[in-house]
Amino acid sequence: MATLITLVTDFGSADSYVAEVKGVLLSQVHGVVLVDITHEISPGDVRAAQYVLSRVWRRFPQGSVHLAIVDPGVGTARRVLAASIGGHFFVAPDNGLLSFLPHDAHFVALPIPDGASPTFQGRDVFAPVAGQLALGASLSNVGQPVTDAYRSPLPAPHHDGTVVIGEVIYVDRFGTLISNIPGEAVEPGVRIRVEGTEIGTLARTFGDVGRGALLAVVGSGGTVEIAVRDGSAARLLGVGVGAEVRA
Amino acid sequence: MATLITLVTDFGSADSYVAEVKGVLLSQVHGVVLVDITHEISPGDVRAAQYVLSRVWRRFPQGSVHLAIVDPGVGTARRVLAASIGGHFFVAPDNGLLSFLPHDAHFVALPIPDGASPTFQGRDVFAPVAGQLALGASLSNVGQPVTDAYRSPLPAPHHDGTVVIGEVIYVDRFGTLISNIPGEAVEPGVRIRVEGTEIGTLARTFGDVGRGALLAVVGSGGTVEIAVRDGSAARLLGVGVGAEVRA
Amino acid sequence: MATLITLVTDFGSADSYVAEVKGVLLSQVHGVVLVDITHEISPGDVRAAQYVLSRVWRRFPQGSVHLAIVDPGVGTARRVLAASIGGHFFVAPDNGLLSFLPHDAHFVALPIPDGASPTFQGRDVFAPVAGQLALGASLSNVGQPVTDAYRSPLPAPHHDGTVVIGEVIYVDRFGTLISNIPGEAVEPGVRIRVEGTEIGTLARTFGDVGRGALLAVVGSGGTVEIAVRDGSAARLLGVGVGAEVRA
Repeated sequence: MATLITLVTDFGSADSYVAEVKGVLLSQVHGVVLVDITHEISPGDVRAAQYVLSRVWRRFPQGSVHLAIVDPGVGTARRVLAASIGGHFFVAPDNGLLSFLPHDAHFVALPIPDGASPTFQGRDVFAPVAGQLALGASLSNVGQPVTDAYRSPLPAPHHDGTVVIGEVIYVDRFGTLISNIPGEAVEPGVRIRVEGTEIGTLARTFGDVGRGALLAVVGSGGTVEIAVRDGSAARLLGVGVGAEVRA
Repeated sequence: MATLITLVTDFGSADSYVAEVKGVLLSQVHGVVLVDITHEISPGDVRAAQYVLSRVWRRFPQGSVHLAIVDPGVGTARRVLAASIGGHFFVAPDNGLLSFLPHDAHFVALPIPDGASPTFQGRDVFAPVAGQLALGASLSNVGQPVTDAYRSPLPAPHHDGTVVIGEVIYVDRFGTLISNIPGEAVEPGVRIRVEGTEIGTLARTFGDVGRGALLAVVGSGGTVEIAVRDGSAARLLGVGVGAEVRA
Repeated sequence: MATLITLVTDFGSADSYVAEVKGVLLSQVHGVVLVDITHEISPGDVRAAQYVLSRVWRRFPQGSVHLAIVDPGVGTARRVLAASIGGHFFVAPDNGLLSFLPHDAHFVALPIPDGASPTFQGRDVFAPVAGQLALGASLSNVGQPVTDAYRSPLPAPHHDGTVVIGEVIYVDRFGTLISNIPGEAVEPGVRIRVEGTEIGTLARTFGDVGRGALLAVVGSGGTVEIAVRDGSAARLLGVGVGAEVRA
């Protein structure tokens, strides 16, 4: 099977940066298939990159390499990591982006070659290692083992009596507020609240309410989401990432 | 020839959704080539998706599968369709998106598997069927024949005496107003009007007028377009989809 | 090795235009790999396209074809060119977009086939020739040699005594101001100025200054850049392309 490399960056799609990385990969790895996860992470938003990649990686075949470049600390002493778990490989800065990986994932720190641009290590450090992994290198071929990768996991919900208290961890294109409360944590009949606004009990899908109405559903990522049918919950409620969600 | 799957969605390019669909397809179909038509359809704009896909599909090789997910009714009783015509395959919701297909196209309705997310059937229902079709399944392998696919075709122009009356059916990135009046329906010397503003007779290309000037041409889709050279007709005229065009 | 065709356009990603070009290429060239450099060049901004393509092309393998369609003069008497240098091929309008190519590049002018849309030659003229080149055609197979390709190179810096005076030639997604002053032209200890604002001496990377602070670095393209750590220099300084940079 052709090797897959997926890309998550905050480079946007207007400049040359994504293509410079792709040129490196395509020159290095004959027949590699490149898949853009997204390049529209807000500049430096490591948490959003973590959320998006955590949702996506298991959908790709074993052997895939996931290259994640949201790296406001580029060129500083922060390390560059490669990781593996379950037949998947990851290359990312050591800034918490890979905190979603299980604790039995393996990590190595990559050497920074002389001559690498201190402002674009994605092209000069990350990409060549992603290419090596795609070509079959093992983690130990590309760096030194580390056991202290920086962890900054997405916030987890907690209980207050019978109430589950979580928060919005991502807002999507449609203005849907995605919380960190797993659907299975919500007791039947419980009314969902967002920053004090009562949304109602869990609906099944958007069509269960009228156009423009708020609803709460268990979304496609498995957690509670607050949406507006044919509209934007973020705009209607005026809230975003970090807003409290109660269930 | 490697099988092609094209994608038209309103998912945008910032979130995980497109990549979740691609992960499903790439895991299922060895060597499949994925082509993004666009993910920037305005949320729920079935008509724009219909226009874009109707322009594009014949450019791809026979055997291509066109996966179109603009689906405000996701999870409701609306059906999910697969279709075939002329060696091309389509998967889309039964909301009119495929109304551009000729009347001799074949349609089937797809079963909704248990466990499919009621808010993301694109990933859990549409994509696996697109993958099956890419792997060589026939329509009858993937669903039950239907003869009553919902049709909501783009508006057609009509005649009022010698005048052809149509409307703007799409506005592109450049602010060009694309009408539904076929170029061959315009008599020589006829002056084009948009919502009462006279544009002039048909020009050949943008360079035929001065910078910033309005012109009407037969566009690359074969219909009359109103453009501004190095500018935006939509902004200059203050009109958009639905504006009356007379020729 | 599968042939690569890269694409630089100002088509945006919302409309059918990019996919129409890709459909032509994929129908013509079995197994071709298409790489989007960007489709987000501002409409008609030939200079930005020139800058982006000049940065990127050498990263791709020899044999790659680079298809660049930023073409405000489409359908006029301006020629359509193909070019080759160092095992790379280019197809672009004769509007200066390829001015970055070395003077020993070879150029041919392409015939315009009957029936080509006068407003979308990218699809009907450029793409089929890019496909032929990807299939192994030589320049002389696709057009007539020309030695007078229109040249409109990006501005070069000049010296005023010991001071190097250049300008901003590109602003990227992060609001970083990219100048045309090569890093090696800057004497040690020289303070960089942008439109009269002193930025300081060259730093190594963003982390060398505090959050929100201005800095000057030698960027990943090899020239002096002015950036704001975790911010936008373009916004902070209120300047853009053409702003004077002194080093």
